[in-house]
Amino acid sequence: MNVDGNHYRTIWPAGDGWRVMIVDQTLLPFEFKVVQLESLQEAAHAIAEMLVRGAPLIGATTAYGIALAMHADPTDASLDYASELLLQTRPTAVNLRWALDEMRQLLAALPLEQREQAAYQRAAEICDDDVAMCSAIGDNGHVLIADLWDKKDCQGQVNILTHCNAGWLATVDWGTALAPIYKAHDAGIPLHVWVDETRPRNQGFNLTAWELGQHGVPHTMIVDNVGGHLMQRGEVDVCIVGTDRTTSTGDVCNKIGTYLKALAAFDNDIPFYVALPGPTIDWVAKDGLQDIPIEQRTSIEVTHMTGQLEDGRVCTLRIAPESSAAENHAFDITPAGLVTGLITERGVAEANQAALAAMYPEKVEASR
Amino acid sequence: MNVDGNHYRTIWPAGDGWRVMIVDQTLLPFEFKVVQLESLQEAAHAIAEMLVRGAPLIGATTAYGIALAMHADPTDASLDYASELLLQTRPTAVNLRWALDEMRQLLAALPLEQREQAAYQRAAEICDDDVAMCSAIGDNGHVLIADLWDKKDCQGQVNILTHCNAGWLATVDWGTALAPIYKAHDAGIPLHVWVDETRPRNQGFNLTAWELGQHGVPHTMIVDNVGGHLMQRGEVDVCIVGTDRTTSTGDVCNKIGTYLKALAAFDNDIPFYVALPGPTIDWVAKDGLQDIPIEQRTSIEVTHMTGQLEDGRVCTLRIAPESSAAENHAFDITPAGLVTGLITERGVAEANQAALAAMYPEKVEASR
Repeated sequence: MNVDGNHYRTIWPAGDGWRVMIVDQTLLPFEFKVVQLESLQEAAHAIAEMLVRGAPLIGATTAYGIALAMHADPTDASLDYASELLLQTRPTAVNLRWALDEMRQLLAALPLEQREQAAYQRAAEICDDDVAMCSAIGDNGHVLIADLWDKKDCQGQVNILTHCNAGWLATVDWGTALAPIYKAHDAGIPLHVWVDETRPRNQGFNLTAWELGQHGVPHTMIVDNVGGHLMQRGEVDVCIVGTDRTTSTGDVCNKIGTYLKALAAFDNDIPFYVALPGPTIDWVAKDGLQDIPIEQRTSIEVTHMTGQLEDGRVCTLRIAPESSAAENHAFDITPAGLVTGLITERGVAEANQAALAAMYPEKVEASR
Repeated sequence: MNVDGNHYRTIWPAGDGWRVMIVDQTLLPFEFKVVQLESLQEAAHAIAEMLVRGAPLIGATTAYGIALAMHADPTDASLDYASELLLQTRPTAVNLRWALDEMRQLLAALPLEQREQAAYQRAAEICDDDVAMCSAIGDNGHVLIADLWDKKDCQGQVNILTHCNAGWLATVDWGTALAPIYKAHDAGIPLHVWVDETRPRNQGFNLTAWELGQHGVPHTMIVDNVGGHLMQRGEVDVCIVGTDRTTSTGDVCNKIGTYLKALAAFDNDIPFYVALPGPTIDWVAKDGLQDIPIEQRTSIEVTHMTGQLEDGRVCTLRIAPESSAAENHAFDITPAGLVTGLITERGVAEANQAALAAMYPEKVEASR
């Protein structure tokens, strides 16, 4: 997608054949800065500290993290250590595990001298596959938005609510939840996006509003408390969000607060879609509440806020009394019953085991 | 209630017999500062800029605002002007209208030379009545918390979720939603409060966490997105919130985001109570969504955040891209069907027209 008119992916190999370039998303929306990763440790740090975030991009960065480890040391011990280190960075992201499995399966079978090159090649394929999947998700979701536009007799605009950032910044390109929005916008459907702030890390304001703005998609920022009110008033036609992990039964793990929006959509008879590439489906998990561990992050993300002073300097403030403790639950589970459909690269599936199994029969076979 | 061990109300007459003292709540939790109001304009400013906030305290400040106007000029023109000015400050707060009606009805019938004294006297009565009402709400809500404690076989603690600030800072003393918590805590029931941040103005962190801390009530701060997740996990036993206006049919207008928490409580079979003094009931309004105007405030509250730097200085940051617009809807409506009960100074009523009419028969008569 575009930044100041130039095309970017969120991760790409540097010209030297081994370093890896990423966008430091912690600096957005105030600064667009490309940084290079030179080691496994830097890749792990980038994931843990959320320089990169979003399930698909975490997967891609994991793959390149393994490649960087193979560049430094292609032994089995190095591969084991790299896997362990990367696995600990973000426990909720299923794409991280998926990418690790992909890389380990490939590399463990190869002689040491072939591992580095194979790792970089597979990481590049994972990125290209992600772009292709997100583009297909966009096409499939575009059809849904076009249908809503028809239902409104092509009057006004289609109002879409999204939570957190599942845009191109969360993937290698296009995004998941935002891909249908970009495709529909580019096709000329008038639309407007309600952008949830997404406390505590504010990915909605910092990332989603920023990238929609760069692409020229009309949007309005709201705090997380507002979505239900807008739905009651008929100001939301559809919700589209991403997911960090979705069970084989359609329970959706996504950024904290997603469940509340799904409840409001259900209460107001508004379709609630989740956009996801196939690798985000956890074919083993059957019950989101039971089977998916929810990451707890540092309370500093809750009690402190980073932003920009009038003079342009970026700094961090304490926004809560020092004597009060805080908890920071990073994700929640939206039960399948609240989800209208799952927008995948293969089409739109109902959020249940039978529909997902019919769409990915080979995965069901493999998980038996 | 206590601040650093000293007892305070939120509004009180100065020793000189005409100035009015308030706490500047915009400076909390970083500074506890008492300021004096010397004119109608300062009272209106204090309400509009939320130096004082919370329905009952807005009512009390309105009454003192009229008294300050009568001190300066006791004519009918002055009374009309003062009413108009105060009415425009916060359109959603029913207590503001109620206090204006009380004051105008009293003063319009009096000769000019008696108006000032009568106004101050009535304002003081309104304050004392509010303290008595909130104390009674506390007693009635304490019974509910004691019941929950019994149901848990007196094991662990009672976990209570609240939204925004409906504590002593929102009233003259005690609070509405927090009054039952203070009474139950003082009676020795082990309890713990989940404090919603309450974006965009963060009254939860700035005010509720601060006042619970001053009183020694155990609490944990969470962002607004977290409540549903905690309810799914059994970590909330009851929700108690305040209200700015409740219809005669039990629809509850309260701080934006309340509706989302009520949906989650309903979905998880958790009791959801609203604490309110009688004057907060709007006996004319029958349908919250239709009949209650929702205040929209400046988008700066959404795009900027005030807090404290490490060196102690308080400053304001921009926390969103400059090129993106924001909207700031300040309240929402929680339909009566999601409300377990209304905790009033007269007891706990079901949230419906019959139950409220039975509890306040004289109001139903008067509104006919």
